[in-house]
Amino acid sequence: MREVLDAVAAGELSPAEAEARLAGYATTDAGRFDAARERRRGIPEAVLADGKTPDEVASMADAALETTGRVVVTRAEDAHVAAVTDGLSAEATVDHDERARTLVVEAPGFEAPTIPATVAIVTAGTSDAAAAGEAATLVRAVGATVDRVDDVGVAHLGRIVDNLETVRAADVAVVAAGREGALPTVVAGLVDTPVIGLPVSTGYGYGGEGESALASTLQSCTALSTVNIDDGFSAGAQAGLIARAVAAAREE
Amino acid sequence: MREVLDAVAAGELSPAEAEARLAGYATTDAGRFDAARERRRGIPEAVLADGKTPDEVASMADAALETTGRVVVTRAEDAHVAAVTDGLSAEATVDHDERARTLVVEAPGFEAPTIPATVAIVTAGTSDAAAAGEAATLVRAVGATVDRVDDVGVAHLGRIVDNLETVRAADVAVVAAGREGALPTVVAGLVDTPVIGLPVSTGYGYGGEGESALASTLQSCTALSTVNIDDGFSAGAQAGLIARAVAAAREE
Amino acid sequence: MREVLDAVAAGELSPAEAEARLAGYATTDAGRFDAARERRRGIPEAVLADGKTPDEVASMADAALETTGRVVVTRAEDAHVAAVTDGLSAEATVDHDERARTLVVEAPGFEAPTIPATVAIVTAGTSDAAAAGEAATLVRAVGATVDRVDDVGVAHLGRIVDNLETVRAADVAVVAAGREGALPTVVAGLVDTPVIGLPVSTGYGYGGEGESALASTLQSCTALSTVNIDDGFSAGAQAGLIARAVAAAREE
Amino acid sequence: MREVLDAVAAGELSPAEAEARLAGYATTDAGRFDAARERRRGIPEAVLADGKTPDEVASMADAALETTGRVVVTRAEDAHVAAVTDGLSAEATVDHDERARTLVVEAPGFEAPTIPATVAIVTAGTSDAAAAGEAATLVRAVGATVDRVDDVGVAHLGRIVDNLETVRAADVAVVAAGREGALPTVVAGLVDTPVIGLPVSTGYGYGGEGESALASTLQSCTALSTVNIDDGFSAGAQAGLIARAVAAAREE
Amino acid sequence: MREVLDAVAAGELSPAEAEARLAGYATTDAGRFDAARERRRGIPEAVLADGKTPDEVASMADAALETTGRVVVTRAEDAHVAAVTDGLSAEATVDHDERARTLVVEAPGFEAPTIPATVAIVTAGTSDAAAAGEAATLVRAVGATVDRVDDVGVAHLGRIVDNLETVRAADVAVVAAGREGALPTVVAGLVDTPVIGLPVSTGYGYGGEGESALASTLQSCTALSTVNIDDGFSAGAQAGLIARAVAAAREE
Amino acid sequence: MREVLDAVAAGELSPAEAEARLAGYATTDAGRFDAARERRRGIPEAVLADGKTPDEVASMADAALETTGRVVVTRAEDAHVAAVTDGLSAEATVDHDERARTLVVEAPGFEAPTIPATVAIVTAGTSDAAAAGEAATLVRAVGATVDRVDDVGVAHLGRIVDNLETVRAADVAVVAAGREGALPTVVAGLVDTPVIGLPVSTGYGYGGEGESALASTLQSCTALSTVNIDDGFSAGAQAGLIARAVAAAREE
Amino acid sequence: MREVLDAVAAGELSPAEAEARLAGYATTDAGRFDAARERRRGIPEAVLADGKTPDEVASMADAALETTGRVVVTRAEDAHVAAVTDGLSAEATVDHDERARTLVVEAPGFEAPTIPATVAIVTAGTSDAAAAGEAATLVRAVGATVDRVDDVGVAHLGRIVDNLETVRAADVAVVAAGREGALPTVVAGLVDTPVIGLPVSTGYGYGGEGESALASTLQSCTALSTVNIDDGFSAGAQAGLIARAVAAAREE
Amino acid sequence: MREVLDAVAAGELSPAEAEARLAGYATTDAGRFDAARERRRGIPEAVLADGKTPDEVASMADAALETTGRVVVTRAEDAHVAAVTDGLSAEATVDHDERARTLVVEAPGFEAPTIPATVAIVTAGTSDAAAAGEAATLVRAVGATVDRVDDVGVAHLGRIVDNLETVRAADVAVVAAGREGALPTVVAGLVDTPVIGLPVSTGYGYGGEGESALASTLQSCTALSTVNIDDGFSAGAQAGLIARAVAAAREE
Repeated sequence: MREVLDAVAAGELSPAEAEARLAGYATTDAGRFDAARERRRGIPEAVLADGKTPDEVASMADAALETTGRVVVTRAEDAHVAAVTDGLSAEATVDHDERARTLVVEAPGFEAPTIPATVAIVTAGTSDAAAAGEAATLVRAVGATVDRVDDVGVAHLGRIVDNLETVRAADVAVVAAGREGALPTVVAGLVDTPVIGLPVSTGYGYGGEGESALASTLQSCTALSTVNIDDGFSAGAQAGLIARAVAAAREE
Repeated sequence: MREVLDAVAAGELSPAEAEARLAGYATTDAGRFDAARERRRGIPEAVLADGKTPDEVASMADAALETTGRVVVTRAEDAHVAAVTDGLSAEATVDHDERARTLVVEAPGFEAPTIPATVAIVTAGTSDAAAAGEAATLVRAVGATVDRVDDVGVAHLGRIVDNLETVRAADVAVVAAGREGALPTVVAGLVDTPVIGLPVSTGYGYGGEGESALASTLQSCTALSTVNIDDGFSAGAQAGLIARAVAAAREE
Repeated sequence: MREVLDAVAAGELSPAEAEARLAGYATTDAGRFDAARERRRGIPEAVLADGKTPDEVASMADAALETTGRVVVTRAEDAHVAAVTDGLSAEATVDHDERARTLVVEAPGFEAPTIPATVAIVTAGTSDAAAAGEAATLVRAVGATVDRVDDVGVAHLGRIVDNLETVRAADVAVVAAGREGALPTVVAGLVDTPVIGLPVSTGYGYGGEGESALASTLQSCTALSTVNIDDGFSAGAQAGLIARAVAAAREE
Repeated sequence: MREVLDAVAAGELSPAEAEARLAGYATTDAGRFDAARERRRGIPEAVLADGKTPDEVASMADAALETTGRVVVTRAEDAHVAAVTDGLSAEATVDHDERARTLVVEAPGFEAPTIPATVAIVTAGTSDAAAAGEAATLVRAVGATVDRVDDVGVAHLGRIVDNLETVRAADVAVVAAGREGALPTVVAGLVDTPVIGLPVSTGYGYGGEGESALASTLQSCTALSTVNIDDGFSAGAQAGLIARAVAAAREE
Repeated sequence: MREVLDAVAAGELSPAEAEARLAGYATTDAGRFDAARERRRGIPEAVLADGKTPDEVASMADAALETTGRVVVTRAEDAHVAAVTDGLSAEATVDHDERARTLVVEAPGFEAPTIPATVAIVTAGTSDAAAAGEAATLVRAVGATVDRVDDVGVAHLGRIVDNLETVRAADVAVVAAGREGALPTVVAGLVDTPVIGLPVSTGYGYGGEGESALASTLQSCTALSTVNIDDGFSAGAQAGLIARAVAAAREE
Repeated sequence: MREVLDAVAAGELSPAEAEARLAGYATTDAGRFDAARERRRGIPEAVLADGKTPDEVASMADAALETTGRVVVTRAEDAHVAAVTDGLSAEATVDHDERARTLVVEAPGFEAPTIPATVAIVTAGTSDAAAAGEAATLVRAVGATVDRVDDVGVAHLGRIVDNLETVRAADVAVVAAGREGALPTVVAGLVDTPVIGLPVSTGYGYGGEGESALASTLQSCTALSTVNIDDGFSAGAQAGLIARAVAAAREE
Repeated sequence: MREVLDAVAAGELSPAEAEARLAGYATTDAGRFDAARERRRGIPEAVLADGKTPDEVASMADAALETTGRVVVTRAEDAHVAAVTDGLSAEATVDHDERARTLVVEAPGFEAPTIPATVAIVTAGTSDAAAAGEAATLVRAVGATVDRVDDVGVAHLGRIVDNLETVRAADVAVVAAGREGALPTVVAGLVDTPVIGLPVSTGYGYGGEGESALASTLQSCTALSTVNIDDGFSAGAQAGLIARAVAAAREE
Repeated sequence: MREVLDAVAAGELSPAEAEARLAGYATTDAGRFDAARERRRGIPEAVLADGKTPDEVASMADAALETTGRVVVTRAEDAHVAAVTDGLSAEATVDHDERARTLVVEAPGFEAPTIPATVAIVTAGTSDAAAAGEAATLVRAVGATVDRVDDVGVAHLGRIVDNLETVRAADVAVVAAGREGALPTVVAGLVDTPVIGLPVSTGYGYGGEGESALASTLQSCTALSTVNIDDGFSAGAQAGLIARAVAAAREE
């Protein structure tokens, strides 16, 4: 602890970074940032932009960059992106995926992790792209490789059967589907890769807004686990944690 | 009308049968029996035993036999079956399907219809047998041929793929499934036979009791229609009505 | 297969059309288009515009036109219609139903099917017009004849009783109703035509947004099958499949 | 008040009856009995037996008989009936309706009211008998005449059309129905008698247990009011209150 | 019938009016108008503007004015009001209640009914004014007198206790309340006037949007009947029907 | 810590009691018992018997008695009571409330707390007795005085108005009600004592099983807090914590 | 009473203030204002701006200021704030909390209460600020001291553990949390301060909009009470009532 | 294939086993058994006894034993266990876990897999034992090691904090909890092991029957995936698949 305090006194460490190292979180105007999450959990703390003002998101992003060297923002509208990227150092790396509404910024000198593991991300149709993209961003942030298999819904079984090898070759798979949500069940019945279902909020009427898709993953007659409707963040983070466990075993 | 009244006067016609012919329904102790349904709708009026006492069911069955020559009882427990069959003429035909809980009695001389049409009835697993059996009883009562394809759930796609020809050869198909209810969607994606989904009340937790299976048929990304959870009666009757329409066209 | 590849090599076939013939689907920027659906299922693959950008819809429509000669777009807003029709060949046939929000485009030379079968489409009131119109578009795409019976809700029974002959004369009927959704039950009790209920999302408060209407078709004391709330696509497609089965029998 | 206390002192009035007259309620071992309800509301306080022990029901019935001369027990099982009737004065009048599960006891000398008004009670089928019977008991307790029209469900419209005159002739109607619950809407569309819908807990699957029937009365496209599922008590009491209002006007 | 046709031939009767007299409904561009409802049911057919275009509402209003001399429009936005009143005869009577969103137009010479009966309309708070106003419009259209008792929610019991006489003096009462919806129960416990609960869609979170208020009227420990959330139309129409029954008895 | 270990070595302390003192919980065959809850939270750890076998409950009760001198068992059936009381020291104090299904056992020498604070417990009717009794047991265990006000439901407002002084005199009140659950709202509108609503699972149909009562406390137009349906434990414990806070202030 | 009337006659008292003193409520154009609530309940009557027009809110605020010297407005948009503050006496005190959307106005000379009690208000994250702020406004209006502990969600347990002393030192705590809502349970397990859970409407998909957070407070395995989703008003008012009870005891 | 047919001809292979090898499933009286699941998916096909007769379960178990050498039965009542074990070869290995209701039978000579991976299974309380036990059976069947951490619910945080090392040391964790279901969130916030939430159906009232626990895992503010309520099978199978992936990497 003394070391940290000496560094603050010497101006080598900002108070926020010091607080983050000592307490594990940094206090900002917009809230306490969980600076130690990546160390503790292996996945970066992400800022959910939805329901926060651009200023609040920018303030939390600054804290994250200062204390951990990287920030992941999810559900980011254009105004959030502008607020976060405005005034960034020119050397910072910015990765904005419009469809997935994710933004990843790395401070200059940040060394992103790379791990020897692969996650397959599968979608049933065009409408699943946003949730699947959010999952992909998280997987990449953990350092694993993403393999996409898109538009292989069960209305035409040939599409998924033709693409099974990619899923079989992966260490873990995220399978996104809306409407009746049958794809995660069908995929999990054909491979021994662990499958994480990602229900998507398509559909209307009874079981609409993703409820039917969620029910299908929870009631699946094949074994899989699931996350909430449109929760690409959790699907990607969980896949990332599994990829880390596999990679760690691979490197033992 | 005079003819009917003359026949009653002459003792050639019971008052109940006369009422049935004139008003279209017969008044019994246990309710009004819709004696003209078969003439009007093409499917026999069925007595739903569930929630009725054995005496009530027997009274309605007697009215049906007297006025239409046949009765179909659904959701029949042993006591209902005993009450209905007790004291029947020895020449009456009795067909009791324990698993489907259906009972069909035909009065002596009743000529059951036969029509040139086929209905495929498909199940995902053992637990779908009761609902599928109820549907089969109704289809047979209409006079169509039933072709069964059992235990072909999507957890092992090979099972349904190996049996598609039976479905393709039928004029209409009823596909029963519980849990996540993916089978009707998968089958409907592979054939051009009209598919009626029959959700079954298996499963527990969220979406249990058939809710997920119902949602899957209503949200299906392939086109099909559905009936309520465990409603083998409606599935079979609707398939029977379609079979009658096809058979009528075939015989034009 | 060789034939197809030769045609591609000779420039007589586009790669997309070739892929559609060989694999049964065509890969576009906006997703994989199920080009073989019409051959496999008898109903044209429709593009659901809702939730897709105009560009995505136009890209999928192009693929459909190129590979199957026709495209059906449902839930199309003006921007979708403009994107799809912009730059079409002058000889293409365009049919846009504003109320039903459907758009049908046929490439020059496309021969739309015609089958000898009739579908009655019945509505309870003005608010059912959109869903019923979507169903009508699908029925016509299959080639069957549509007979409309409009504004015959049960609040005034005379209206439906006066129009029963049209329903009786049809091979299959779609009956659309919102609020308490009693019309499909009342119609199905009076005819032997198979009835497909189409619940509509009118009504507010308990059972509003079509839930009561859906429940009424699922709980109906007369036999019928149903589709999801506002799902004119499935109602029309299922009626079309039944009409095809009847027409095929008629032509045997 | 002095009069009442003098009567207690003289042993001419029990303490319970005195409390009932002064405070409007009587305290028993099993709870406070609302002895003034009939005076205040025009309908007798009923004891809901469901969820109470036979002893509790008997204790409350005793208080009612002592303070108001009459008791109405609803949802009474055999044990409740036995406990209440056990030890009754031989001159007491007992009316037990097994199907409706209601019990009405009148103390010797009680003069039941009679009012010049009629309530029609209509049922769709056999399963509606219990709820309709409970309603009838309450109507009779208020003193109005009950006219029953049974088994006229909408699956066969002729049954209700043949019996409309009874409903038109009544001052108010209670219409009971389960499943899809279309009957109250159909009846209310044909008469100008005020209709109270009484949804019944038949049906299974989606909208089962009376939910669909309740939704239909709440969403009805014709004007009517409703009570909760199986709540024959409220339907009968409300019809009774309306009958009293009409009778009072008739006697002005 | 001949008389009607002669009048059409002589130009004394429009075809729409003639159709209305003979068939009981008039066919307009925007649907069939139930012209006989007032004769059959005693309450005027109302046009629900919500979900219809101004043109559709105006077209149905014209049909109503022509065939019945009056029209009631509910849930009318300004555009609906403008479309209906635009081009009306100068002698027509127009009554627009902005808060209740109702519009009543009477053709010149129309004689509005007046009946000797009174309906109390009670509200718990300011937010109940719209639904209560819609009910009041319907009651007045039937010809009964409306007595308002406003802002007497149960949070301050003195407010309702001070105003009970108005409710007691009425023949029937409509009691509107949102949030926890306790007022209808409290009022019904204090008077012998029949009470119709009118739940209002205030409140948020669990039981919000009027669900708790509806549940309270359905579960009420005092006897009353209810209508759907915000359904001032049904509450007013049902109160009107009861008022008519009372008035008819009063005039016998 | 050394002290504790010495005592174990000397046989003066059982290992379970030692573990409880050191770790704050005791390990039994049936689970870990939270022995420090009373010290930490001020309310005794209660054993919920529902869903546990008599043996499991007895094992946990033994651990509680040994480590804290007292045990509170809730939802106790006769078999649970027998298992717990069997083999108890003759000097132990046993308090079993059959209606509330609670059992309190105090080891010989245990000194129950007494605090200078009062909790009013109010019920609407007989059916609320069990939940209210459970709450009373918890309040008494904390050491506060319980004042009961029973059977004062809103159907007869006089009953609650006559008993308000008891509520006003208390430091905090628990108000239990089922059906429409209006009582907590009405009481809270009349006093400045903090009110904790306790919804009870009476009622059937829509809003039944206590849902309407819970919604009423959550939507109440007067300020109060609530606990879950039938959760007398939480209502009593929370009232006890508030009583302790008041008593502590009183004793400052 | 005479005194009041004399003062009105003398022009010393406005009629509204007179009505408020005599009847306990004041009649305004926008409704009856419960002027006696503060005297009766100890918490000021608040005007819920949501769903009311600025004019209605201003009218009720005027009545409150005139009769009680203070007004609290909740869910106030800018237009409401403008309408209320427009034309206020320059000496009036105005306190507008934008994030909490509350507005407190005190008339010149109003003496706000101060009581010797403290309420801890705890939040899990940034999104809980609005509801927590509304609670804080109510607590302050009652006169108690507010201690805030912000951004201590359970994803990083260190944050709450580091801040427990503030909660322990308070007389009562409000704990706000959205998403899975675990924080109130975790806090209540660690302190003996009474905890009021305040579920917040964050989260999407299943259990979203605060449903999961509400369920967690109602199902909590530690004892606490709760208010509805986002109901900072009730949480703060209830905490205020408890603080008053504690302060009163402290001052005895 | 020839080899297999030769073996059948030679009597060395039963027809069932031959069918299983060739088609991947075996046809029994009670359904088609998915004999190739273990090969295809890595987890043994389990027979869900719930809803099946003892005979049906025994028939499917025989098929499993004959074709795969092992059977796992879940939700097994005593009658199911008796039917399956009756007539087993004496050398068969039988493992029946009464609390978990699982039964594992291995044919003589079956070599159960063992893999170098560990799964932590954590429970909040006694009521979670059944679901957790089912998960443990599946994990062991896959060959991984199970480490149990029991009774560490969040009401006493010390219990889980004291046992974190076991979770950290595992490759994947299953965390079971009922009521408010906070434990999976709290555990996942403290470790980087992938956590699978297993919600348990404890609790009553709102959010009861496991709904609140499920919602908590789906809404968790830390990243995890979940299975359905009480679905120990899926939790264990998914953990087993992840363990296999890790073990495979470890053995590369």
